[in-house]
Amino acid sequence: MRMYDIIMKKRNGFELTKEEIEFFVKGYTAGSIPDYQASALMMAVFFKKMTKKETLYLTLAMKNSGDVLDLSGIKGIKVDKHSTGGVGDKTSLTLTPLVASLGIIVAKMSGRGLGHTGGTIDKLESFKGFSTAISTEQFIKNVNEIGIAIMGQTKNLAPADKKLYALRDVTATVDNMSLIASSIMSKKLAAGADAIVLDVKCGSGAFMKTYDDALALATEMVDIGNNAGKKTIAVISDMDQPLGCCVGNALEVKEAIETLKGNGPEDFKKLCMTLGAQMLIAGEKCGDEEEAYEKLEEAISSGKALDKLASFVKAQGGDESAVYNTDLLPKASITEEILLDEEGYVKHIACDEVGISSLMLGGGRETLDSVIDLSVGIEILKKKGDKVGKGEPIAIIHANDKDKLKAASERLKKAYEITPEKVEKEALIKNIIK
Amino acid sequence: MRMYDIIMKKRNGFELTKEEIEFFVKGYTAGSIPDYQASALMMAVFFKKMTKKETLYLTLAMKNSGDVLDLSGIKGIKVDKHSTGGVGDKTSLTLTPLVASLGIIVAKMSGRGLGHTGGTIDKLESFKGFSTAISTEQFIKNVNEIGIAIMGQTKNLAPADKKLYALRDVTATVDNMSLIASSIMSKKLAAGADAIVLDVKCGSGAFMKTYDDALALATEMVDIGNNAGKKTIAVISDMDQPLGCCVGNALEVKEAIETLKGNGPEDFKKLCMTLGAQMLIAGEKCGDEEEAYEKLEEAISSGKALDKLASFVKAQGGDESAVYNTDLLPKASITEEILLDEEGYVKHIACDEVGISSLMLGGGRETLDSVIDLSVGIEILKKKGDKVGKGEPIAIIHANDKDKLKAASERLKKAYEITPEKVEKEALIKNIIK
Repeated sequence: MRMYDIIMKKRNGFELTKEEIEFFVKGYTAGSIPDYQASALMMAVFFKKMTKKETLYLTLAMKNSGDVLDLSGIKGIKVDKHSTGGVGDKTSLTLTPLVASLGIIVAKMSGRGLGHTGGTIDKLESFKGFSTAISTEQFIKNVNEIGIAIMGQTKNLAPADKKLYALRDVTATVDNMSLIASSIMSKKLAAGADAIVLDVKCGSGAFMKTYDDALALATEMVDIGNNAGKKTIAVISDMDQPLGCCVGNALEVKEAIETLKGNGPEDFKKLCMTLGAQMLIAGEKCGDEEEAYEKLEEAISSGKALDKLASFVKAQGGDESAVYNTDLLPKASITEEILLDEEGYVKHIACDEVGISSLMLGGGRETLDSVIDLSVGIEILKKKGDKVGKGEPIAIIHANDKDKLKAASERLKKAYEITPEKVEKEALIKNIIK
Repeated sequence: MRMYDIIMKKRNGFELTKEEIEFFVKGYTAGSIPDYQASALMMAVFFKKMTKKETLYLTLAMKNSGDVLDLSGIKGIKVDKHSTGGVGDKTSLTLTPLVASLGIIVAKMSGRGLGHTGGTIDKLESFKGFSTAISTEQFIKNVNEIGIAIMGQTKNLAPADKKLYALRDVTATVDNMSLIASSIMSKKLAAGADAIVLDVKCGSGAFMKTYDDALALATEMVDIGNNAGKKTIAVISDMDQPLGCCVGNALEVKEAIETLKGNGPEDFKKLCMTLGAQMLIAGEKCGDEEEAYEKLEEAISSGKALDKLASFVKAQGGDESAVYNTDLLPKASITEEILLDEEGYVKHIACDEVGISSLMLGGGRETLDSVIDLSVGIEILKKKGDKVGKGEPIAIIHANDKDKLKAASERLKKAYEITPEKVEKEALIKNIIK
């Protein structure tokens, strides 16, 4: 088999076989197939697309290129959750203890990542002492004992995907649905869960800008997961404005805790309930959505979900008292209300711009070496459709540096579009793909 | 400027600017742009094509990536000639002394190349002592004194093309008209002539299998040349069967000499006359084709063209007596007539297969290190449309090794397709593009 022939075949629009795709993934991971042939193939894939079969084979080959987590030591149906990411997305922080309190096994790997805020792991480090640097044995022990554990991604998880993504990133071959879907799913499948619930974001703050693209990606991923023998469900949710009200690490942890106490913002709670219901059904803890919603409400009102978060934080070395007293979380030294010159209704919030404002405050990473300031961020007071009266602030900025505050404040103001006419609110949940 | 943006722009179907193309070619030649980005761009070009403007800019940038020959020390209009290559293509051997004898300045660089037979330089080495390893000064001196000289390609001629072609060759991005045309023309333009006559072959023995493809390539090259300020003409000629009757180095030299004596095969003579007429017109030695043909006929019948070949061979150290006595050329030790089991008319000769038979005899190079046997080859006695009677040989094989002869003979027989019905002969000259 020759890589040249594989490139030519795809370039000419033919479907590659399982063997050809495995030959490519193995050879590329091992270094026997050079970058320049891989990038030519990726560009050919961009133009000629991949069939469902090819996408599945690519995903499985990338999954098998490194370690595949063996979670067989954990009893019960393990349900994993993944979000395609967006601004203010603290969903895992609320969702995982919530479903764990209802018996869903949460054995999750999370990343740090680059971006507007830290990843789930960074956010969790808002709890003093909390660590995800635990051994696989400890991880499995924690899951068996309290039903929930989160660890950092092992270095050798789908190395083929890591190498190929880095190549695609510099050769303008990222934006192909099959390649995006297989990249995400190869890691999810290697993480060993039995079922996967995906949160696919769409809108200005998401990688998928339109509903149609989000639908296409969700469908690709659900097909891959189901064809790989894992029950997979995708929820398509709005990311045309930040999720919930808080953007920033400790601020998001606080909001996640408030939501577990029943005091969270409506949109964020709705997303957690929707994803939670799908996880309960996938984990065979509920027969239908109605039953699932009832159980989720009860887990919140009874305090069971909040207690589960506390046990989880404690089991990974964190100070669980912050769960009950959020004043113990990191706090910024300066807070400032942001006011606009106009009044009216919020027509649009440029989601990315809010994220960049948070990054400017020091809340995210620009490079892998950046140190995150967990305490800074933005509290959004006015969202799409809200009325902004004279003298009413739209947001509160939490900062530790006056210059950064000023710059972020200017940027944040420009992210808002105000109109005199009333504005309809957008539905948060767009679709559920099974 | 970033290479990433250039790839993305082309991928999305936009026209690249002169600056962007120059940035790519310079960066790629210097090594600051890696192979994997170049191959991604080439694949994007394959799918999105290049405009006439882009093709011209790419050609000029590649031309300027290395040495550009300065032929200003040579008086008169320098007319270069290039063939896209085929089986039995000894055209330069006849054509260059023919037009030089009529005052056209021939200052030509030629290659050795891989393939069925050697390149022009290899063939010329059939003259004992002949060498193309001459300095640029000697080259210009010879041209000024006798009007014709051929030298080997300098190593630094269009290095960007060399590097890019090698990359395209392993990434399935060779077959794009703009890229093929710019590759050829960058070298031709760097070789410094004032006008260029191109022989674009089409048919089973050529890189362009169909007339339409040959026309597209011819048009691309003529446009590039003319837009670069060099008068450029392309002749599209048939390569669905070997050109003339001889395939093999010394055999082709002999046939070229016979043609200069007026005894050449009809098809080969016709091609030389057609290309010669275009060179005479491009070099402003004749006003029209009628006048050109008359002069060409006279150069042959008077012996002037043959004498010019002798002076040329002598000036580059070769034994010119072989021009007048072809028995002095290298000769194989064995000759064998090839007979078929069938009789009828030649319907088709698989051109590539004839070439491979010659290669099997030792007449060509499989790798850059191969040593060519100048004496071996194939004399074709029956061509398309010819009647093959019982006991009539179709060809004579010239060999130095019985096993090789046997293998080549089997291969050659299979190249012939015989039919009981009469077969129309194909027109050799398909079109002339100016």
